[in-house]
Amino acid sequence: MEKKPYVIGLDLGGTNSVFGIVDGKANVVASVSVKTRGHGTAENYVNNCCEALQTIISQVGGIEKIQAMGIGAPNGNYYSGSVENAPNLEWRGIIPLAKMFSERLGIPVALTNDANAAAIGEMAYGVAKGMKNFIMITLGTGVGSGIVVNGQLVYGSDGFAGELGHVVIDRSKSARDCGCGRKGCLEAYCSATGMVRTALEWMAIRTTPSTLRDIPFDKLEAKDISIAASQGDFMAKEIMNYTGDLLGKACADFCNFSSPEAFIFFGGPTKAGDLLMNPIRKAYDENVLMNFKGKAKLLLSELDGASAAVLGASALGWEL
Amino acid sequence: MEKKPYVIGLDLGGTNSVFGIVDGKANVVASVSVKTRGHGTAENYVNNCCEALQTIISQVGGIEKIQAMGIGAPNGNYYSGSVENAPNLEWRGIIPLAKMFSERLGIPVALTNDANAAAIGEMAYGVAKGMKNFIMITLGTGVGSGIVVNGQLVYGSDGFAGELGHVVIDRSKSARDCGCGRKGCLEAYCSATGMVRTALEWMAIRTTPSTLRDIPFDKLEAKDISIAASQGDFMAKEIMNYTGDLLGKACADFCNFSSPEAFIFFGGPTKAGDLLMNPIRKAYDENVLMNFKGKAKLLLSELDGASAAVLGASALGWEL
Repeated sequence: MEKKPYVIGLDLGGTNSVFGIVDGKANVVASVSVKTRGHGTAENYVNNCCEALQTIISQVGGIEKIQAMGIGAPNGNYYSGSVENAPNLEWRGIIPLAKMFSERLGIPVALTNDANAAAIGEMAYGVAKGMKNFIMITLGTGVGSGIVVNGQLVYGSDGFAGELGHVVIDRSKSARDCGCGRKGCLEAYCSATGMVRTALEWMAIRTTPSTLRDIPFDKLEAKDISIAASQGDFMAKEIMNYTGDLLGKACADFCNFSSPEAFIFFGGPTKAGDLLMNPIRKAYDENVLMNFKGKAKLLLSELDGASAAVLGASALGWEL
Repeated sequence: MEKKPYVIGLDLGGTNSVFGIVDGKANVVASVSVKTRGHGTAENYVNNCCEALQTIISQVGGIEKIQAMGIGAPNGNYYSGSVENAPNLEWRGIIPLAKMFSERLGIPVALTNDANAAAIGEMAYGVAKGMKNFIMITLGTGVGSGIVVNGQLVYGSDGFAGELGHVVIDRSKSARDCGCGRKGCLEAYCSATGMVRTALEWMAIRTTPSTLRDIPFDKLEAKDISIAASQGDFMAKEIMNYTGDLLGKACADFCNFSSPEAFIFFGGPTKAGDLLMNPIRKAYDENVLMNFKGKAKLLLSELDGASAAVLGASALGWEL
């Protein structure tokens, strides 16, 4: 059967659900955004989304031009096509979102978590093109990961594999609480939120002057730290070094698992570029096992932040 | 082409090289052992091995009855078929052992490291039969691992993936030196050698009485600790608890990677059974991410220790 010219990608975020219609050359030819919250039930959400989708589907010539749909969603399970107990969404329990969209639209729909979707997008359209073994690290509210081994996403026995943000990097008594209920997880230090926690902690316990001190406690964002670091603020630069050092050490450990060709970093904090990547590379080189030294590349995602998640989700559609 | 009835498995250890001729039902129908050291060059080693092999090959009706050969060797690289810079062998550099045996015997030969061979053996003949995602942990002089994802061994970009013994579990200043030149690796604590180091360290810094104190410093083996623990020796039991606790915490982290159906433990120290497995299970349950709780099984290898390595290597032969 001939492939149809388009797929739909859905980047389902905590705030916005962004739909894109994507062609075979990674062009987002039409897109529409719907608020993720405020629909009451998941059924209403799907109904309202499909209504919004009709407009852009018509723009490309109707649903018969669309091969499939891919969804990247927090706590998305590829095997079941469900969003399961996502703490940042308003739906409780297990929501069979792939099935619900598929029934409404009449096309095949696949779903995975957002970091896996980013990895698939990177493999289809980005810097991982042609790679068979790589690890995608996404830095945002949390630290997500998508692991590719032998050219395939690692979903594991239950569809939830690739939670590298919850590898413990501090086993001491003073380790930070993590949102998962445990202590010392990579995510508690190296997510955008973790970087802000570092800044708040250091401003409390140190007397070093910093422009970060001018920002109200509640308003400080990782972006502010990147900007301050790029303007030469000492403490902000130290926070980038500290974050990069932990990420580099963690990746050196991850290498023992799948010896990837590359680690690919994606997300807000990576916009700091070398301010973050240099300490990552330094710590990685200093800590990786001799056998692996100088092998894996540590790269920035080449996908445009705004469309990367939609492209990643859409690439999942092409796999169907 | 019809499959021939036998494969050869070679378990290449630091001391002995054990060859077995194995049928399709995991019976070792003939075997022979050659010292690994003392042959001078790798060429002489292969020649002497092939000479020893002639006898058992004749017993099964000649080389035309043999499908292929599989080798499990320290620092074995599946992609290149070479043993590369193995610190415990007398050959320096890169030894293309698969090619050398293949040329001498006239059959296809594949090679991988010993822990991967054990994982393949477990999948072909053992407790991992039918599993698509599991992690094999081998406890011996070091801590080895063989990782299976989507039914395939994880070799990574360079053939050296699966070095979980070198994941860092102690990042503090007082972390133990590891044989790899780094500090705080799992292997430095939880290998048979690591358990002995724990015993020696604790006997030095504690005054607790223990039957282990009757054993000369140089003679103490992990086996002695297991035996003392099974006889109720307090310190020996504490060492089993400490080792199991670290292994359980490490496996809880490994779960974040591939969410395996099972962890399978193999090697001398596992003969202690529940004395080691109970603390592993306890620490695993207490430390694994909520999503994964109660999912993975923590199992002992079902392969007989004496033939497991040969069976594992032979199973690699069937894959050819």
